[in-house]
Amino acid sequence: MLGKSQAKYIQSLGQKKFRDEEGMFIAEGPKIIEELIASSSHHIHQLYALPEWIEAQSSIDQNINVVEIEEKDLEKISQLNTPNKVLAIVKKFEAPATFETKGAISLVLDTIQDPGNLGTIIRIADWFGVEQIICSADCADMYNPKVVQSTMGSIARVKVLYTDLVNWVSRQKDIRIYAAALEGRDVTTMDKITEGLIIIGNESKGISPALFELANVKIHIPQKGKAESLNAAVATGIILSHLV
Amino acid sequence: MLGKSQAKYIQSLGQKKFRDEEGMFIAEGPKIIEELIASSSHHIHQLYALPEWIEAQSSIDQNINVVEIEEKDLEKISQLNTPNKVLAIVKKFEAPATFETKGAISLVLDTIQDPGNLGTIIRIADWFGVEQIICSADCADMYNPKVVQSTMGSIARVKVLYTDLVNWVSRQKDIRIYAAALEGRDVTTMDKITEGLIIIGNESKGISPALFELANVKIHIPQKGKAESLNAAVATGIILSHLV
Repeated sequence: MLGKSQAKYIQSLGQKKFRDEEGMFIAEGPKIIEELIASSSHHIHQLYALPEWIEAQSSIDQNINVVEIEEKDLEKISQLNTPNKVLAIVKKFEAPATFETKGAISLVLDTIQDPGNLGTIIRIADWFGVEQIICSADCADMYNPKVVQSTMGSIARVKVLYTDLVNWVSRQKDIRIYAAALEGRDVTTMDKITEGLIIIGNESKGISPALFELANVKIHIPQKGKAESLNAAVATGIILSHLV
Repeated sequence: MLGKSQAKYIQSLGQKKFRDEEGMFIAEGPKIIEELIASSSHHIHQLYALPEWIEAQSSIDQNINVVEIEEKDLEKISQLNTPNKVLAIVKKFEAPATFETKGAISLVLDTIQDPGNLGTIIRIADWFGVEQIICSADCADMYNPKVVQSTMGSIARVKVLYTDLVNWVSRQKDIRIYAAALEGRDVTTMDKITEGLIIIGNESKGISPALFELANVKIHIPQKGKAESLNAAVATGIILSHLV
């Protein structure tokens, strides 16, 4: 059973303001929930699930509070067009104060505003073993339900820091700073790297000039056809596949 | 001014059934409309635009019928969350009966159902100069407004054929057929190709077994982290960046 005030509380977590106040976010669907249970079960505050999902679990961590609900209740609280069996209220991960960039590859995202793109980039980072992402304050919120969905569980494994990028990047010393651009070195012919910051910019506006100036290696993906640009997440995937 | 019946007609084009009956689709926003005017102005049946967009044009092809409308009318007919100055009713492109695959690289898409993914793949193909895409009948409709938006204008330049893939692929003789898989040759170390079919499968189900059997080169993108998979469009971008 789902009470009215519970439903209202869950719905409110669709908004950043309430997520920030509560320190909670929503995740949905068997795939991501099962990944969260496996990797960060202590972060799961509450699970709301259809009987069929509960029955299909061989066991669920005793510490997780599971509420059995009906399809029509799930429809009420789900942020998805097609609700998918299970929804969790999850405690936000601890925001890192900063990152150790030495010996690591870090992604720097300047104004990635589309939630689907941000989620997909988090998933790409996780695929290529990039464990830290630094976002400008005006990137989409990593706990936006659409971001969470598109990470497909990778949100639990990649650390994300929101900060002023120009300030933060200019404090990183003795490290190579790569900027994805429309010109510069051809990324498909470059050697692999094991350390560096890789800056990806907003799709229509690119990287802001003040940040771009801090880069010491401009890189680009060669264009062979006529499209003017690539989607920011696709570009990130291509760059990491050549450099990492 | 926008009449009621016009508004209703435009709204109906949000549905595949009506698009198929009318042979028309909708495109929105300055970027894609300007690309369509440049590449295929004879396909534009009607333009609905705010005064500010019309004023910003140095000239518009005399043959294009432009209707000036107000913001509130645009809101009525737009399929976007944030209507964007101009909407066009566009004649569908001629569907190719088949493709000449010799000497070309062709993408074969098996059950890509997410409209955003299909549109992004069309845009990626256009970036890498891949001019033909063969889709299974159960792929998203290329004229779905979300597909059209995510192609960012590339829809006018890439030819798309919907057909039975097993039947079509098995009729292609003496050509290499590459299948994106979780194992097989490491795509990042392969030589460039100038001819071949590249099969991309549905994200959760992969390539259907009957189609997979027809492939003679299995290829994969090496995973270095923990994410279980990559988004289908991102995988397509990475594969093309290494092979083309």
